[in-house]
Amino acid sequence: MARKLKVAVVGATGVAGQQFLVALDGHPLFEVTRLAASARSAGKKYIDAIKTEAGQMQWHCNEPLSPKFAQIKVDEAARMPMNGIDIVFSALESDAAKQLEPVYAKTAGVFSTASAFRYEPDVPILIPGVNHSHIRMIDTMRKNRGWKGFVLPGPNCTVTGLAITLKPLHDAFGLRSVMLTTMQSVSGAGRSPGVLALDITDNIVPYISKEEEKVEKEAQKILGEVKGGQFVPIRMDVSATCTRVPVLEAHTESVFVSLKKKASVEQVKKVLRDFGKDFLKKGFHSAPDQMILVHDDPYRPQPRLDRDNGGGMTTTVGRVREDSVLPNGIKYLLVSHNTKMGAAKGAVLTAEYVHAEGYFRG
Amino acid sequence: MARKLKVAVVGATGVAGQQFLVALDGHPLFEVTRLAASARSAGKKYIDAIKTEAGQMQWHCNEPLSPKFAQIKVDEAARMPMNGIDIVFSALESDAAKQLEPVYAKTAGVFSTASAFRYEPDVPILIPGVNHSHIRMIDTMRKNRGWKGFVLPGPNCTVTGLAITLKPLHDAFGLRSVMLTTMQSVSGAGRSPGVLALDITDNIVPYISKEEEKVEKEAQKILGEVKGGQFVPIRMDVSATCTRVPVLEAHTESVFVSLKKKASVEQVKKVLRDFGKDFLKKGFHSAPDQMILVHDDPYRPQPRLDRDNGGGMTTTVGRVREDSVLPNGIKYLLVSHNTKMGAAKGAVLTAEYVHAEGYFRG
Amino acid sequence: MARKLKVAVVGATGVAGQQFLVALDGHPLFEVTRLAASARSAGKKYIDAIKTEAGQMQWHCNEPLSPKFAQIKVDEAARMPMNGIDIVFSALESDAAKQLEPVYAKTAGVFSTASAFRYEPDVPILIPGVNHSHIRMIDTMRKNRGWKGFVLPGPNCTVTGLAITLKPLHDAFGLRSVMLTTMQSVSGAGRSPGVLALDITDNIVPYISKEEEKVEKEAQKILGEVKGGQFVPIRMDVSATCTRVPVLEAHTESVFVSLKKKASVEQVKKVLRDFGKDFLKKGFHSAPDQMILVHDDPYRPQPRLDRDNGGGMTTTVGRVREDSVLPNGIKYLLVSHNTKMGAAKGAVLTAEYVHAEGYFRG
Amino acid sequence: MARKLKVAVVGATGVAGQQFLVALDGHPLFEVTRLAASARSAGKKYIDAIKTEAGQMQWHCNEPLSPKFAQIKVDEAARMPMNGIDIVFSALESDAAKQLEPVYAKTAGVFSTASAFRYEPDVPILIPGVNHSHIRMIDTMRKNRGWKGFVLPGPNCTVTGLAITLKPLHDAFGLRSVMLTTMQSVSGAGRSPGVLALDITDNIVPYISKEEEKVEKEAQKILGEVKGGQFVPIRMDVSATCTRVPVLEAHTESVFVSLKKKASVEQVKKVLRDFGKDFLKKGFHSAPDQMILVHDDPYRPQPRLDRDNGGGMTTTVGRVREDSVLPNGIKYLLVSHNTKMGAAKGAVLTAEYVHAEGYFRG
Repeated sequence: MARKLKVAVVGATGVAGQQFLVALDGHPLFEVTRLAASARSAGKKYIDAIKTEAGQMQWHCNEPLSPKFAQIKVDEAARMPMNGIDIVFSALESDAAKQLEPVYAKTAGVFSTASAFRYEPDVPILIPGVNHSHIRMIDTMRKNRGWKGFVLPGPNCTVTGLAITLKPLHDAFGLRSVMLTTMQSVSGAGRSPGVLALDITDNIVPYISKEEEKVEKEAQKILGEVKGGQFVPIRMDVSATCTRVPVLEAHTESVFVSLKKKASVEQVKKVLRDFGKDFLKKGFHSAPDQMILVHDDPYRPQPRLDRDNGGGMTTTVGRVREDSVLPNGIKYLLVSHNTKMGAAKGAVLTAEYVHAEGYFRG
Repeated sequence: MARKLKVAVVGATGVAGQQFLVALDGHPLFEVTRLAASARSAGKKYIDAIKTEAGQMQWHCNEPLSPKFAQIKVDEAARMPMNGIDIVFSALESDAAKQLEPVYAKTAGVFSTASAFRYEPDVPILIPGVNHSHIRMIDTMRKNRGWKGFVLPGPNCTVTGLAITLKPLHDAFGLRSVMLTTMQSVSGAGRSPGVLALDITDNIVPYISKEEEKVEKEAQKILGEVKGGQFVPIRMDVSATCTRVPVLEAHTESVFVSLKKKASVEQVKKVLRDFGKDFLKKGFHSAPDQMILVHDDPYRPQPRLDRDNGGGMTTTVGRVREDSVLPNGIKYLLVSHNTKMGAAKGAVLTAEYVHAEGYFRG
Repeated sequence: MARKLKVAVVGATGVAGQQFLVALDGHPLFEVTRLAASARSAGKKYIDAIKTEAGQMQWHCNEPLSPKFAQIKVDEAARMPMNGIDIVFSALESDAAKQLEPVYAKTAGVFSTASAFRYEPDVPILIPGVNHSHIRMIDTMRKNRGWKGFVLPGPNCTVTGLAITLKPLHDAFGLRSVMLTTMQSVSGAGRSPGVLALDITDNIVPYISKEEEKVEKEAQKILGEVKGGQFVPIRMDVSATCTRVPVLEAHTESVFVSLKKKASVEQVKKVLRDFGKDFLKKGFHSAPDQMILVHDDPYRPQPRLDRDNGGGMTTTVGRVREDSVLPNGIKYLLVSHNTKMGAAKGAVLTAEYVHAEGYFRG
Repeated sequence: MARKLKVAVVGATGVAGQQFLVALDGHPLFEVTRLAASARSAGKKYIDAIKTEAGQMQWHCNEPLSPKFAQIKVDEAARMPMNGIDIVFSALESDAAKQLEPVYAKTAGVFSTASAFRYEPDVPILIPGVNHSHIRMIDTMRKNRGWKGFVLPGPNCTVTGLAITLKPLHDAFGLRSVMLTTMQSVSGAGRSPGVLALDITDNIVPYISKEEEKVEKEAQKILGEVKGGQFVPIRMDVSATCTRVPVLEAHTESVFVSLKKKASVEQVKKVLRDFGKDFLKKGFHSAPDQMILVHDDPYRPQPRLDRDNGGGMTTTVGRVREDSVLPNGIKYLLVSHNTKMGAAKGAVLTAEYVHAEGYFRG
């Protein structure tokens, strides 16, 4: 096997950063050699950097912290040495991302969970298996910006499952419009400040700031085309209502789609089930064994039972039915793991794909 | 004040029956004189009929059991003497309702939470303040069936808030179609068997058997007209996805409506806020002070915070916005208390209205 | 009726401050004339001071904000004019309390939810109905410190229900030792930062920083005596394990007590039920109709069903049984509303009592 | 490897039966060759026997159903052919267990989750690693009852973790008495009827019928000795308060122990950590890598984070501290997976141990 690519994880002490570490533990292609965080953590061993003053370890994943990572000395994100680094996985907050990711991108490929660059005209929002043709915008980005590397932001976690299920419908039947109501888990809000038990126990919060705009805009960009080095968003109206529910992990989405071409429920199920087979043949380390699992049991998908399908990387669909209101209407529910496929582990899969496409050669 | 009407509560030992007792405690017009349940309870004092063999009292309301009701001897529902009874509030299961409600209706007005008669061609599904014109179907029913009384089933608890918010939109702008995703509380499933904590904790169940069909059919009937002694359902497509969420009480519904006439968000809010003012002027005992409360705060409505508005009888709306997909599309969320306005207390308000309209005279 | 005492609420914009406002709304003896908070809020109307920059109102009580309070201009706590103020209800954080409460106490009676002064040798931790004899320490405090007023901190919310149930046992049978395991609600941690849904959903957290020490120390002080102007703590070992559970409001405590004198379960129930009758005869505005409600039903007390007994001011007890390990052992469970009797409303009741004892005269 | 023992799982369609199937899937020593349930399921393939009339599959484990088991034809428990069966894993209800387990025991070793035989004078309640010396009561049982096989009931799920942590303390320091308050998960109540979300959401139920008696009695038997072919329960008073909390899986227990010999916190931690090392060396298939995991972090154990330690077979302990009330008092919390180590998987481990001890030879 060829040499492993050298990886830095930035924003490594936060929840998303820790999820990167879990996704990268024992990775066959990527080797974590540097961890970076804020000035407060700089100079400490990672294991010490995530301890509170009272000595409590703030490790927020179910999977254990790799002892190897525990001993790495943390750099300050703003002064991280880039020599020898091929890839930066960035879990920075949006403002820091805006400032630092371009610095890293001068020499490295940056895969980010931040939204800072999602809406730039030369930056694709790649979802592995969904919009492969957008990858060539990396060349445009490099030319425009004089980078040797690039920045590839992942989509908003609510968009991930939506785009994955819309893509095969788009290819097979064409998309006219989509309406959805989301029931999003508390992990989507992170931990700073995060959702208080006082606010969500026995309750639903019917609003998530800026979420609906992101869903609408990102879905259109991801499902659109690249023409003449420019993004042409799909002409598909999207209308979203996003809510927060008392669920720990995984977003559930109730979707109503208007297709261009009439399709039966069985046809829809078939294209969903068949989606991504070629992509998956390539055997990426972080990929699930199926992109979309479709249940016939009407009591599924359920977030607690289906979120870990495919190691959290499979989008699970159920209740595919005809909709009586929209032209060629189809409705279904989906469950997507917002902190696996919808965040760090999804970004790692993207990196595996970009690597396979040769963007780290030479 | 005139004499109080004599009331029997049937199915009195179950949850819905108990909610009738709470709604009727201290009622200015109705006096509970008889309680009935299954043969197993017959002959016992009510307070004893709701005890388990181990002596545990099975009273499932937050409000206390009235000491007056506690001492009433329970009749068997199938043999309840009807002499002197003006009104029967029925919380029977569907099969028993089908058989017994017509017996009671020979001489009394029956207000029921069961679905048994909802879809009969001469039986209206009355919601106070919403479809007053349907009340005259009582005359048709009496004529058809030779009853001195009548049966008036309340709507499915998910329809109540929906119909209340659609009615003013219908009157002001016309309705073309409606799509909704519901997030329904566990109390909607009752207690036999009810929703297990094992199934709903940290979870969503995406299916409620037969619920979507009821929502679609009942909404169309309630918002329709009576012409020539017959129901003409509204021509409005309804498409519902109904889910169960970990919330104790109150259904939350994410609604997308296509109006016939373009309306601004402010116009929609105004007609919602103004709805029912004339009806409420009559000062019914169980009525709230407003039919619909509209929040401007985008973080509302929340089921835990808004379910008890107006004593559980107000429908609370928020996040009224334009929808970009449907023609003249408007979207909003609503919260409606499924076991108050959506069940027993709603039926009591209906009885108050029917009483005011003179159907118990002579 | 005599003139109302003039009241300031300090720390008024936080959760505990808001609970003071609810407890004081429409109060027959106390009139809120001043509200104070941090410099950031100073100069704003209260209604504006509790809005986020995005305009969302941060009112955290189920009861509505009184319109009268909404319009009061907020002072800076550190510069609040004390002229005309008889009483200060303080919801300050501990550090600010340490600094500011003595300033207020120069001229006013300060009732505080902060722990800053609880362990001072001349400051009692008063619980109405429990340790009346401690009230005379106010005179000592005044003499020691040259204050015209005084500072009266309320107990830790976990101690309240414990001390209320131990006091009658102490009086009737004597106390040797007490062991308890608490299951505390998330509201006990407040909102800054508060308990995250991510941490407590489907979970228990077995530790609450410094809580056990407070329980042990405060219980001993409250149940102790005042002799020669000094506190003599009760000689009773206390051993506590304090945990956090997924409950919104009310602490549940599993208590094991060793009595000095053998007592039967029925005797224990009787002294608990009889407790506080004389105190309650005085008819204080914020007092419940019974200090302790004792259930015979083994399935009670339950925090959701019992927390609002007596307007949140009654301690509810159940499962009184003999304990086989401790000498003259008795065990029971209690539920106590941590943000009513255990916090602001309890402090208001204390103020009513201190007022009745003449400490605000002349 | 020697031939695998032939196994029947009885009560196979219920939750505990399904957990047996999960624990036995791919087992190196045991081969499931027969499944039995009630007459209603008899004659159907297992996969069909667990479907509702509406076709919904009632499989209640997170782990998938093995396709091999899915195709086995279900026998009626009361008429199951015993030829060739070495072991019966029984998940029968108590009444059926009382009747049928002796029939199976005539020729096979029966490992049961039912309580039917727990209190028989010649039947041990074996916990692997805890009370090995009790195994020889199998000989007594065989002699008394004329069985070639035997019945070995597992302990109540609340006792398991308690006994595992008490045993090393008993061996090292002696036990005088133990007091505990349990916070038990909803899965402990099973599914028929199970705990309703309506009853436990935002709540605690302070009573579990008959649980405290079982804890007290079984702990004394398990920690006792076998002398002259008879059980001599340990002389240790046990006082338990058992509650139900809104947690899905794993019981949390707050334990206070009085030791015979004074021991420091560090000594206690050490004996807990060292417990079972010899037993584990034997490398049983279902055994964890450590019997007891002791946390130093005071925020642990937490049921959601610690229940799956050691594949659900490790008991996790934390907050080991001195107790100030009991003589030589020590207190700690433990988390134990009630449906893994505390039920079916624990019974399978017991079977592995009994097999290693030679009870299935010849």
